[in-house]
Amino acid sequence: MATLSTLMHLECSMCTKSFDAKQLINMCPTCQSPLFARYNLEKAKETMTPKALKERTHNTGSLWRYEEVLPIQQKDYMLSLGEGWTMLHHAKRLGDHIGCPNTFIKDEGTHNATGSFKARGLSVAVSRAYELGAKALSVPSAGNAAGATAAYAAAAGLQAHVYMPQDVPLVFRVECEQLGAHVTLVDGLINDCGQRAKRDAEKSSIQRFDLSTLKEPYRLEGKKTMGYELAEQLDWKLPDVIIYPTGGGTGLVGMWKAFSEMKQMGLLDGKRPRMVSVQSTGCAPIIRAFQEGKKHAEPWENAKTCADGLRVPVAVGDFLILDALRESGGTAVAVDDSEMFKYTKIMGSHTGIFPAPEGAACLAAQIKLLKSGWIKSDETVVLFNTGTGLKYFNIYTTM
Amino acid sequence: MATLSTLMHLECSMCTKSFDAKQLINMCPTCQSPLFARYNLEKAKETMTPKALKERTHNTGSLWRYEEVLPIQQKDYMLSLGEGWTMLHHAKRLGDHIGCPNTFIKDEGTHNATGSFKARGLSVAVSRAYELGAKALSVPSAGNAAGATAAYAAAAGLQAHVYMPQDVPLVFRVECEQLGAHVTLVDGLINDCGQRAKRDAEKSSIQRFDLSTLKEPYRLEGKKTMGYELAEQLDWKLPDVIIYPTGGGTGLVGMWKAFSEMKQMGLLDGKRPRMVSVQSTGCAPIIRAFQEGKKHAEPWENAKTCADGLRVPVAVGDFLILDALRESGGTAVAVDDSEMFKYTKIMGSHTGIFPAPEGAACLAAQIKLLKSGWIKSDETVVLFNTGTGLKYFNIYTTM
Ligand SMILES: Cc1ncc(COP(=O)(O)O)c(C=O)c1O
Ligand SMILES: Cc1ncc(COP(=O)(O)O)c(C=O)c1O
Repeated sequence: MATLSTLMHLECSMCTKSFDAKQLINMCPTCQSPLFARYNLEKAKETMTPKALKERTHNTGSLWRYEEVLPIQQKDYMLSLGEGWTMLHHAKRLGDHIGCPNTFIKDEGTHNATGSFKARGLSVAVSRAYELGAKALSVPSAGNAAGATAAYAAAAGLQAHVYMPQDVPLVFRVECEQLGAHVTLVDGLINDCGQRAKRDAEKSSIQRFDLSTLKEPYRLEGKKTMGYELAEQLDWKLPDVIIYPTGGGTGLVGMWKAFSEMKQMGLLDGKRPRMVSVQSTGCAPIIRAFQEGKKHAEPWENAKTCADGLRVPVAVGDFLILDALRESGGTAVAVDDSEMFKYTKIMGSHTGIFPAPEGAACLAAQIKLLKSGWIKSDETVVLFNTGTGLKYFNIYTTM
Repeated sequence: MATLSTLMHLECSMCTKSFDAKQLINMCPTCQSPLFARYNLEKAKETMTPKALKERTHNTGSLWRYEEVLPIQQKDYMLSLGEGWTMLHHAKRLGDHIGCPNTFIKDEGTHNATGSFKARGLSVAVSRAYELGAKALSVPSAGNAAGATAAYAAAAGLQAHVYMPQDVPLVFRVECEQLGAHVTLVDGLINDCGQRAKRDAEKSSIQRFDLSTLKEPYRLEGKKTMGYELAEQLDWKLPDVIIYPTGGGTGLVGMWKAFSEMKQMGLLDGKRPRMVSVQSTGCAPIIRAFQEGKKHAEPWENAKTCADGLRVPVAVGDFLILDALRESGGTAVAVDDSEMFKYTKIMGSHTGIFPAPEGAACLAAQIKLLKSGWIKSDETVVLFNTGTGLKYFNIYTTM
């Protein structure tokens, strides 16, 4: 059965050239920049109305509710394990505690298969690769993306090859193995994993489609649904500030794309939120580039942080992240690992959400920005807890 | 704002005496048996119709959709972190692989806060204790119930005291601590934890409400929603067989109660499923009692299994479990830990669900019952994966 997808073509985010979307493709062949999916939004807005969305209750709730602005053409290829349509909590007790009563947490640790928002990007990317005929997939990952790739590949019956840093916490490796993926540990960081994946793919007899973030068009599409959900859950009014833990930046760039699509569809008016990137002081390439007013970020040397998702020294989409921060009147904040530890328990004991350190980092950043006056106490702030704390429990046991 | 709850009174499951439901109460004061909540089902069925349920989309989906048959009176006390309304997967690839195409998995590892179905029982029990004025809670647990208690207590702002076996995997302890609970490790099993919790409570200045499973009426109510969901998701037709990993048995007894309520409400006709209890060969008190035709189960000596949720040597509700198995024409199967390991990967790589060993045990049992002919290959079978495999990753690393 056909979906309501209004996908038209792919467009290069740098040189704006168009490409046929009915092919397995990675970056722009001309300038090697990320490709964006483009939709017929005039058509999408006819069926994807606030009222129609309210009635989309055919399953337990997932990001597939936004099928008009997602790339899958046939329902049979929509893989579903629990991806998105996560809770937006009004964290009243926490908000009162920190002096910012309108604090909300978008909790990506529950309602997402494999316990992180990576399920969003990979449900859509794997589904689309499956629909376009891929047989084997490969992905470099700091940890969470590997698990999500393994899960959706298993759901589809595709081969998954995942590459993670040697020192990735064991839980990530076990998860991938039990989901049937081929796991390779690499002496290095996520960028080294990417290179190794590429080399292995060249030698492989079965062609492997590369799912590196922003190196294929559709993980972004999955992640942008965080923006759609936020709008829908806040009754089509966006918050003043969004605080987001930034690694490769796909989530932030994706939400920014979603806001612009929603505006074109007439689903939003009013102003867009100020976007805040949070990174670790041990790996803060985006923060540095933002502060220095640069268009691109220099690679970070000796990246180190317990927040594996933030241990990303180079991001292909750096210019897209920096653009979104600047256009939105946002900012960029670095946070110490010790603050992430501290704020994990503060968030946990005031909300019932055990966050990943990446999520706790958002709370630490909010506190800093409240202190400096950049956030006013009556503003509405949304923190993204991008994953469950369960996968990181080992970092608390060495303290 | 008032809920649609039709709660009337509590009734002893053994001596059938009635008690006022507007009080914090544990077991039947007369015979020390579990108390069951009773509802005005004639009234409940007026609003809780299949059609009305389809339209209950006010949030991301949770067990609170069945508010008529849940005990909370005021909306403000319905704590919500993601509890229930989990996916029911038609596991096609797995079903074909094992020769039972109509195999379904109810995946409790996603959509439940703290990664297990314990969120169901404890969201309801903590909400109700909160509504009835409790300030502090205590619970003995094999692991998952402690995390869920900690989470919902934090959401409400109540004190939580959790008691776990000393050798519980570290992740369970860290989770509780980061959620702000007071953690006590006990040299012994869950029943020893219960005794210690009781002693500590007697010495405490703030009164602690005991949330031990089946020793208060409402965890059962939360867990029974698995039965309601199964019916709703299968369009009000139940499967032929349900396979459930049994520790304290609250889930199984809860579903059985739900089926009987649904029958009274006219939501179900036709026959009820055959219920199958799965335990570990290292701790199988219910299997033994079932096979020996006993009404109660003898305590299991030296209980040992990697499936923490099944390491329950004595269950207060043993007679209720055994009744349900027998009334339903069901059976009871013991499974080796080594089989749980093996079937974890088989389930994982054929579905994308990384199950807890308790979930894998259900698949192992299904295979046994298919081989013996007790399950026919064209029957519809639902396996309960009661939690995420993530919390148990350490058991795969010592192999
Ligand atoms: C838990 C977690 N948070 C945040 C991030 C960073 O996400 P993004 O690549 O969208 O910036 C990751 C990426 O691995 C992650 O796993
Ligand atoms: C993952 C898991 N499965 C199954 C069980 C057993 O549940 P019940 O007490 O409902 O029999 C438990 C209980 O701790 C558990 O944590």
